[in-house]
Amino acid sequence: MSVLLAVTGFDPAEWAAALEAAAPGRTIRVLPDGAGDPEIRYAVVWKPPAGALSALPNLRAVFSLGAGVDHLLAMPDLPDVPVARIVAGDLTARMTEYAVWRVLDHARRGRFYREAQNKSVWIERGQPAASELTVGILGFGELGRDAGEKLAALGFRVLGWSRTAKHHASIEVLPGEDGLSAVLGRSDILLVLLPLTADTRGILDARLFARLKHRTPLGEGPVLINAGRGGLQNEADILEALDSGRLSEASLDVFETEPLPAASPLWRHPRVFVTPHIAAASSAPALAPIIMRQIEAAERGEALQNLVDRKRGY
Amino acid sequence: MSVLLAVTGFDPAEWAAALEAAAPGRTIRVLPDGAGDPEIRYAVVWKPPAGALSALPNLRAVFSLGAGVDHLLAMPDLPDVPVARIVAGDLTARMTEYAVWRVLDHARRGRFYREAQNKSVWIERGQPAASELTVGILGFGELGRDAGEKLAALGFRVLGWSRTAKHHASIEVLPGEDGLSAVLGRSDILLVLLPLTADTRGILDARLFARLKHRTPLGEGPVLINAGRGGLQNEADILEALDSGRLSEASLDVFETEPLPAASPLWRHPRVFVTPHIAAASSAPALAPIIMRQIEAAERGEALQNLVDRKRGY
Repeated sequence: MSVLLAVTGFDPAEWAAALEAAAPGRTIRVLPDGAGDPEIRYAVVWKPPAGALSALPNLRAVFSLGAGVDHLLAMPDLPDVPVARIVAGDLTARMTEYAVWRVLDHARRGRFYREAQNKSVWIERGQPAASELTVGILGFGELGRDAGEKLAALGFRVLGWSRTAKHHASIEVLPGEDGLSAVLGRSDILLVLLPLTADTRGILDARLFARLKHRTPLGEGPVLINAGRGGLQNEADILEALDSGRLSEASLDVFETEPLPAASPLWRHPRVFVTPHIAAASSAPALAPIIMRQIEAAERGEALQNLVDRKRGY
Repeated sequence: MSVLLAVTGFDPAEWAAALEAAAPGRTIRVLPDGAGDPEIRYAVVWKPPAGALSALPNLRAVFSLGAGVDHLLAMPDLPDVPVARIVAGDLTARMTEYAVWRVLDHARRGRFYREAQNKSVWIERGQPAASELTVGILGFGELGRDAGEKLAALGFRVLGWSRTAKHHASIEVLPGEDGLSAVLGRSDILLVLLPLTADTRGILDARLFARLKHRTPLGEGPVLINAGRGGLQNEADILEALDSGRLSEASLDVFETEPLPAASPLWRHPRVFVTPHIAAASSAPALAPIIMRQIEAAERGEALQNLVDRKRGY
């Protein structure tokens, strides 16, 4: 039995080493090595090249590096085998770090104070306390829940929105279309951690921004933080909302086109903070053992965890 | 019985209104009104003008707005009455927001990504996970403990240092001079929340920086975050440590001279983030009721809380 590592967009060496270290007895093949090999039963992938998976005659399961699987489900030749997302403490912790970092930077007026420093000006501008701000989290799965709990511990008022009804002991989670309206109308900071599905594609558009609160303790409209998927957002509408004051600031880690083209006005907008899709960058040494444990469990005939529901899209 | 509000450096109007709202039956006088009035039994102060307190014949206690009381204890004419610090959930929460904000901004390489954005360049630079970084907190009182707990919840390894031995259920707190050496040698990020006393004045100097770790997962030396008091730091030594790599970056909220003079090179150092002493800016609506409750308790003959030990200095 072998495992195939099939990734594009980055050097697979670190991952190959980490997988090997996590499973001393197993053979790890790295594409183009191992293409079509009948010995391969599991594939560990990130944006695998077209044809790489369908060429494996004995493939039993696919493991996606990263929480999002939309790129994988969109492959026309994806074999009909279970696809597992990685739900790892590390990935969740990374995303929560990013979420708390960005929420605090907006809440504590990082942009204002960096601009004051650039002018060598000692000037105070009131910063609302966490307890005066509501963070609405769109997408209240594993990632949303953890970020919400850490933000609540810092004193923020937290609301969650998810497609289906979910219960949380201390965070109000509002489901469905009515729930979305309520969260949009009450949030000062909108934290987006949604998966990209047919239902959510382009959801961050002018129609949604029109449903947001008009005044927040931070200034004009709410702050938008998108660490979900670029396909969720309409960037022309975001720019218009920033300029009209419907949105006051934005932190974007994901974009319609990645890498974000140098010509995009988002790079140069003074109230937008751009990061290159690093919110929850996977750490190979942390994640490889989790994947290899799942593979060994599957070899023993146990059920795989965190399987993707293809119809639902995540 | 009246209460005197005696502050300099900011407009007292918001505080006067908040104190009045918190104690409808009491008279609040705002300096210069009320100077020397025998009716006044309590003073609520921030850097009060010289002579203002000693002129009050029936003063029973002084309440300091803000956690630090060094400016007050340094007044040669401070009357011999109890001085109470404000220990309020709000102040602690504000300081923790600042601490978590700055720790995450350094850990997630905010400076690097802002510079990349300025050049419209999509480039990733690995960000160590919280679990790979040790935050050493100098000063493990109320503020240090709360910040430490919130940082630990985000996955950071946290160490505390305090003058006297302190126990914490999950955070290692190392006391005394040996403890300081250990914390300095193990920290990737040094978070300073010390009070300013004869023992701590100028403690953040070249001798202390020489005891820091040499390599951290963030680059060269550790990051320095000072949200305690400007008198703790030697700014010439900080600049030298930044330029030699003993320190990689700094976030400073307090300075030897405040406001920080426009000529200070700290304003323009690319690896220093300057804020104008706003880390734990007091919120009048949140704190005024706490002060007035203490005053009412004192009027009923109850003991005051959070009294300053003048000999210890905090």
